[in-house]
Amino acid sequence: MPKKSTFSSLQAVYTDIVLMSSTQALLDWDQETYMPPGAIEFRGKQTSLLSGQIHKLKVGKKFSHLLSQMINLETGEILDSTLTPSQIVAVKEWRRTHLQEIKLPAAFVKKFAATCSKAIHTWAEARKNNKFSLFAPHLQKIVSLCQKKAGFLGASAHPYDALLDLHEPGMTVAELTPLFERLKVALTALLKNLASKPKINTSFLELNYPHDKQMEFSHLLLEAMGFDPAISRLDLTSHPFCSGLSVTDTRMTTRIHTNLVTSNIFSVLHEGGHGLYNTGLPAQEFGTPLCENSSLGIDESQSRWWETLIGRSLPFWTYFYPKLQHSFPEALSSISLTDFVRGINSAHPSFIRVEADEVTYCLHIILRFEIEKALMEGSLQVKDVPKAWNEKMETYLGITPKTNAEGCLQDIHWSMGSIGYFPTYALGNIYAAQFFTAFEKAHPDWQEKLSQGNLSFIRTWLYENIHRYGRLYTPHELVKRITDQPLSEKPYIAYLEKKYNNL
Amino acid sequence: MPKKSTFSSLQAVYTDIVLMSSTQALLDWDQETYMPPGAIEFRGKQTSLLSGQIHKLKVGKKFSHLLSQMINLETGEILDSTLTPSQIVAVKEWRRTHLQEIKLPAAFVKKFAATCSKAIHTWAEARKNNKFSLFAPHLQKIVSLCQKKAGFLGASAHPYDALLDLHEPGMTVAELTPLFERLKVALTALLKNLASKPKINTSFLELNYPHDKQMEFSHLLLEAMGFDPAISRLDLTSHPFCSGLSVTDTRMTTRIHTNLVTSNIFSVLHEGGHGLYNTGLPAQEFGTPLCENSSLGIDESQSRWWETLIGRSLPFWTYFYPKLQHSFPEALSSISLTDFVRGINSAHPSFIRVEADEVTYCLHIILRFEIEKALMEGSLQVKDVPKAWNEKMETYLGITPKTNAEGCLQDIHWSMGSIGYFPTYALGNIYAAQFFTAFEKAHPDWQEKLSQGNLSFIRTWLYENIHRYGRLYTPHELVKRITDQPLSEKPYIAYLEKKYNNL
Repeated sequence: MPKKSTFSSLQAVYTDIVLMSSTQALLDWDQETYMPPGAIEFRGKQTSLLSGQIHKLKVGKKFSHLLSQMINLETGEILDSTLTPSQIVAVKEWRRTHLQEIKLPAAFVKKFAATCSKAIHTWAEARKNNKFSLFAPHLQKIVSLCQKKAGFLGASAHPYDALLDLHEPGMTVAELTPLFERLKVALTALLKNLASKPKINTSFLELNYPHDKQMEFSHLLLEAMGFDPAISRLDLTSHPFCSGLSVTDTRMTTRIHTNLVTSNIFSVLHEGGHGLYNTGLPAQEFGTPLCENSSLGIDESQSRWWETLIGRSLPFWTYFYPKLQHSFPEALSSISLTDFVRGINSAHPSFIRVEADEVTYCLHIILRFEIEKALMEGSLQVKDVPKAWNEKMETYLGITPKTNAEGCLQDIHWSMGSIGYFPTYALGNIYAAQFFTAFEKAHPDWQEKLSQGNLSFIRTWLYENIHRYGRLYTPHELVKRITDQPLSEKPYIAYLEKKYNNL
Repeated sequence: MPKKSTFSSLQAVYTDIVLMSSTQALLDWDQETYMPPGAIEFRGKQTSLLSGQIHKLKVGKKFSHLLSQMINLETGEILDSTLTPSQIVAVKEWRRTHLQEIKLPAAFVKKFAATCSKAIHTWAEARKNNKFSLFAPHLQKIVSLCQKKAGFLGASAHPYDALLDLHEPGMTVAELTPLFERLKVALTALLKNLASKPKINTSFLELNYPHDKQMEFSHLLLEAMGFDPAISRLDLTSHPFCSGLSVTDTRMTTRIHTNLVTSNIFSVLHEGGHGLYNTGLPAQEFGTPLCENSSLGIDESQSRWWETLIGRSLPFWTYFYPKLQHSFPEALSSISLTDFVRGINSAHPSFIRVEADEVTYCLHIILRFEIEKALMEGSLQVKDVPKAWNEKMETYLGITPKTNAEGCLQDIHWSMGSIGYFPTYALGNIYAAQFFTAFEKAHPDWQEKLSQGNLSFIRTWLYENIHRYGRLYTPHELVKRITDQPLSEKPYIAYLEKKYNNL
């Protein structure tokens, strides 16, 4: 038997980490779906034990010892000449995340977790009672801890870069700022333009849509997208999500409002997009980071692809609308396909990010990015967040929140310590639109095929170009490979302008 | 801060073991309920990693070191004079299970697991194709390994004792053999007696019982038993079970046949009995063995209590039968309460253990006990198991299986290496009936109260006398404390004779 390679040995350690992380994901999935509510405290103990064990493996001597035989941990120089090109990518990725983990002292990680745990609780109270002053001291602590975290993670051009890199590897303030600036200008202009058009009728979306019929339609959509029930499932939660427990176990959730048909449909398409990415990851790379998504932003590009580019398009509904009408004849029999597609694409300023349309969504994100960046720089004080938020809302969207609950207290992210996460939501839209230009070139007849209910060529294109590579390529590399262009907001703007000017 | 006691330190280690075991239980529960079938291979990897980690903690130096400061591992002498009486019980229990774990070499445990993994697969094939010869070599290996296991676990009067002790602490062949012998004589006599009586009508139990109405009735039963949905739930599986993830998380399952109303009802009452035991365990002893059941047999006494002593009684149905009729008017409106209670208590010889009635059930178990004992002694060869099985069936039940699939291949247990487990099923009935004598003394009016739908005084009695003690008392001690008598089959026989002679 030949000597086991160092790579295989580290792969064995990482396999344990992956298996344990997947178990952690099941604990979380169960908590949101079927766990009796009274078990929450016990569940907290289980997850904190398990995440501690995972952390120990990731920063452990064994991991570090094996890794440092293949790569110089300080310089990143590859030391093992037997590694294949894809193994080199895996080793570099192991180094990147290993350094992130070991740079954070255990006491700091513990304090961070404890701070967030309290902050989440208080944030919920503060939002409920519309009282920013309640949350402010907690947000102050989180900002300070995030500044410390950025310090631990190491020198970069901007303190926010270190946090960005945790969620979107390789992304920087230097790149994002001008990109978001250009996007902001274009979106505010488009929004102003739309304001002068007659209001679109959406009232028929809010009639009675029975629960079971909605669930049936969800399964019809997932089946059309190509999901195999042998390796996936759909459940109900208050906030939809997708959890990829393994390539053979994709769990999506949706929510059903019987007086709003769109919520479930677009949740299913969105989570389905995440889900297809998960099922398409390279199983042969199991036990290495290559069998993971490229980044949160790329993952979001897959969900937004199905939810918006495909799922809000005329050709998609040319095929599916008669089926939807068949499921809900009372609500929809008198509504034409054109009016339905208009209705689901109505765009107008609103306060709540998760309810925002395609035109305003990125403006909500850019506002958060600017505030986060300023907080990290120290150019904005926590106490001034509500004012900054409301001013930006007025400037970008032309509306001012009447309360902080519908303003700066609406999202859970900051209370969870997730500063640097929001930009991935906007990047998902930007990546998706840019990928779509290449897809259109490959399939000039996509609208015709799609309007016949053919989704498989779309799934195949995504699989061939994105899914099957897992983490082999960074987001920037993927964009370059697929489109032969650097990252750009232009395709996204062009898509929105064309769509909304023709609606 | 005072120095942490050795007991608390070991309790901290054991808390991790309990949390991880509960996570393991969730992986298993999920596998049976909601996991997509294609995820089975990945799930196998997760569970085997986790069970390996749990085993490591249980046999680890830290565990052994802390424990040996409190108790002499060889002699069992208590060394720590600061221990309270209940802590002493916990420490002794830790020693008992720790010795069981460390006596089995890691290589042996691995080989045992691998052998069973193959055997389970082949057993399913063998049963499907009714081919004992396919399973025989695997059963031979399992018997040999179980003999080895008994050897590792240490000298006792009979090699089967070591296996019995794993499932029912303190139980021995010397005690079981005469007890089962007496029970066998009484049950075969009762069965002969019943054969001369006119056949009971049960056909109405096999009419159309719609799924949703059955599920509603299940929840009505659980609510009446006192389950709080905040800390428990009911799901569907092909084989009903109860999994106690924690005192605040009891998960029961049932199965629903729309053409057989009894399957679901008695599954719910049975698993509900296990479930109430779990919810009643002493939470204040969390992190010690005291917050666990006394034994499998005592756990089974709780399920059989609700399923048979309560759930097949006239007073129970005096209250619930009108509700059942209301749920299923088409099937039951013309059936009287008396006929219904007769129908659900019909007893006659049959081949399949899990479908057996109260009179024949223990005969099925005794048959298995005798075969297992003989296999372990070496007085029966694996190849002769079908013959021995069929002869015993003829002698005890007066019927001979036409195939091994309905004979010695019907149960999964042997393929799982679970030799020594079956007796706990019979013991559950025996314990339950013996406990019931004390319950009747405490509540001479139980029939009257029960017939008014009052179940809470029953639950309270079980909680006060059994549940709240967890593992503080052994099965023998519990029987003695509650009934002031040694373990005896007599109350069980008396209960059956009285019931069936009056039916």
